[in-house]
Amino acid sequence: MQISSLPLGYNHPALLKVLNDPANLSTLVNRPALGNLPPADFPLRVQNSLIAVAPKGLTNVKTMACGSCSNENAYKAIFMWYMTKQRGGAPPSPEELETCMYNKSPGAPDLTLMSFTGAFHGRTLGCLATTHSKAIHKLDIPSLDWPIAPFPQLKYPLEEHEAENRAEERRCLDQVHALFREYTSAGRPVCGVVVEPVQAEGGDNHASPEFFRELRAITKEYGAAFLVDEVQTGVGVTGSWWAHDLWQLDDPPDIVTFAKKMLGGGYFHTEEFRANSGYRIFNTWLGEPSKLAMCEAVVKTVQEENLLENVRQAGSVLLDGLKHLQTKYPTQLENARGLGTFIAIDCKGGDAHRNKILTDLKRKGIQSGGCGERTIRCRPALIFQPHHAEMVVNAMDEVLAEQA
Amino acid sequence: MQISSLPLGYNHPALLKVLNDPANLSTLVNRPALGNLPPADFPLRVQNSLIAVAPKGLTNVKTMACGSCSNENAYKAIFMWYMTKQRGGAPPSPEELETCMYNKSPGAPDLTLMSFTGAFHGRTLGCLATTHSKAIHKLDIPSLDWPIAPFPQLKYPLEEHEAENRAEERRCLDQVHALFREYTSAGRPVCGVVVEPVQAEGGDNHASPEFFRELRAITKEYGAAFLVDEVQTGVGVTGSWWAHDLWQLDDPPDIVTFAKKMLGGGYFHTEEFRANSGYRIFNTWLGEPSKLAMCEAVVKTVQEENLLENVRQAGSVLLDGLKHLQTKYPTQLENARGLGTFIAIDCKGGDAHRNKILTDLKRKGIQSGGCGERTIRCRPALIFQPHHAEMVVNAMDEVLAEQA
Ligand code: FES
Repeated sequence: MQISSLPLGYNHPALLKVLNDPANLSTLVNRPALGNLPPADFPLRVQNSLIAVAPKGLTNVKTMACGSCSNENAYKAIFMWYMTKQRGGAPPSPEELETCMYNKSPGAPDLTLMSFTGAFHGRTLGCLATTHSKAIHKLDIPSLDWPIAPFPQLKYPLEEHEAENRAEERRCLDQVHALFREYTSAGRPVCGVVVEPVQAEGGDNHASPEFFRELRAITKEYGAAFLVDEVQTGVGVTGSWWAHDLWQLDDPPDIVTFAKKMLGGGYFHTEEFRANSGYRIFNTWLGEPSKLAMCEAVVKTVQEENLLENVRQAGSVLLDGLKHLQTKYPTQLENARGLGTFIAIDCKGGDAHRNKILTDLKRKGIQSGGCGERTIRCRPALIFQPHHAEMVVNAMDEVLAEQA
Repeated sequence: MQISSLPLGYNHPALLKVLNDPANLSTLVNRPALGNLPPADFPLRVQNSLIAVAPKGLTNVKTMACGSCSNENAYKAIFMWYMTKQRGGAPPSPEELETCMYNKSPGAPDLTLMSFTGAFHGRTLGCLATTHSKAIHKLDIPSLDWPIAPFPQLKYPLEEHEAENRAEERRCLDQVHALFREYTSAGRPVCGVVVEPVQAEGGDNHASPEFFRELRAITKEYGAAFLVDEVQTGVGVTGSWWAHDLWQLDDPPDIVTFAKKMLGGGYFHTEEFRANSGYRIFNTWLGEPSKLAMCEAVVKTVQEENLLENVRQAGSVLLDGLKHLQTKYPTQLENARGLGTFIAIDCKGGDAHRNKILTDLKRKGIQSGGCGERTIRCRPALIFQPHHAEMVVNAMDEVLAEQA
């Protein structure tokens, strides 16, 4: 599914209809500079696409074009929010305005953003400073000294290792506290924490809703922003539109970023995170209206065809099937885990074993992919149905039997 | 023209044809992850669009989606190239592979990239470290301590101030030398220099071909890469496809970035700047084939309709007209300058005066824009003809007469 970026698979009629509609031709051919000259129908488009699925508590949205510019600009919004709070309503000083032009403090202050080991948030320099999934992404690129907390390494199935997992999450949260204190006392305030609901590129690493709820509370305690990166977990794949819906937070996140299956990028945010003047969060295109037109069709299709329920059903068939296979082939597979159809399983024989299974699956007509060191991940579109899940499980059974 | 991003104006028949062609429907609806699953026609699309206009000496191209990811990834390619040279063919050490995961040296080395005062290269964190046009772009965002050289502040018309301008360019080039030495001796190698052929957002600041030729020579001398950012100057607006064609370099640039009027982003580069393994320069989408299909139509239209010649003719009418107006209204205007239709003029009454003229022009049906502190810039599409230029000059004459 093109790195998890196709919401409705190939050539979905609802999307073909958008592209074939003569009324949309002008939107397709005349890409505007949205920040300066938004077309007349832009507010309605945003309303019918992005705002229609806004996470609870987040009433604002900023459009972007991909996951990287979504996260980059969300980070910038956090730094601006933090400094605006620091100034308590005062305008920036002449010294700040002057020094920032030369990348120097106080105008370009030494602020930091916390991320987690194993995280992936993109590959532009700001995003890359918070990405820690594979060396090949980062090698040779200068970076920023920002705090990196350990992400819990849980034992699966989660329900059989509750006590150990709780201790592991405690260890990680203690480190989050420690890093807040360490960086702040070094005069390098931690303005926010960015986290994925499931670490996707990093190997489908899960944590409990309690972990995320406490993380949210910690960011409040230190006056930092809580940014949830839903670029890969968003748009229904976990059975909820947003994966963080499952945490049942009392306080919503401050910012939620999206891209991939939304067909364009951007971030939702609370009122507080609006830039306090024009042109602070800005670029030439700021996304693209034609992508919003397609996103609108996705949102409608998911609702009309009840696809979240479909994802929950197909996911349950797939996860049960994989759990059955790991019992049947205990020397080959372990750690089947997932939410909705966002499912993964580890190969005991490491990288080579994993890649052999992926190749053999492809020979049987099943396209899948890897993440982390030795993980097979399932990232079907939202139209993947229970009987498709059965086909995957059966094909995998055959592949594993051949290896056994 | 949507921040200089529409090459052929609105609703050009050649672009409508691409979007109306049923053969392109699949390309429009099924956006691929180009780095993993390029469609079968991708090499041909690249050949007919990007490679058809590749700058002299640059035979490789990497597709991206906007100007920011084009520059970010070009910077990364430079850092990778530099470190690969340093290793002399050896693989990265285990220590490098481990430290980079935590943003630490030696894996994330303390390398730098030189830029110029007044430059604009984008707003993601890496790009922003090389952008120095307006405080509002940079305020509150943490940055990198990278060398910033002064960009020449020339007197216009260039031909009347040759000696002074040569001295000013000499001063700036001396600073480039000094910064190379200063950063290198501080153990922070300058791996490349990034420059715009005309500083566009910064106020349409020009420099001579000799300046750029010497800059290219200096980068060679220090073993650094020479990156020309043609995001705004590219695609025929100067009367050449690329503005740096006008410098007649003996050695081509190492990398040339593009976006805006190319309708998608990317960078051309020499063989040396190919990443030495897969997944180093990578993201989910890596641009979009439908944009290449439109870019191909732009390239063909410019050739078939001889639009570069049109730009030269229209530009000459416009520049001559503005020069005439600055003689007629010497208290209002000065410094008419430009290449092709990439033309600007300064308002003597500063920001307020400039904005009044822009508003009055809009009342007469002429949409234009500002850049720098007090500059009016012209950024028409390539279909802007000599008689359109006359309309602009006449409208401006009326506006200036009303103010006089
Ligand atoms: S950085 Fe997102 S499209 Fe270029």
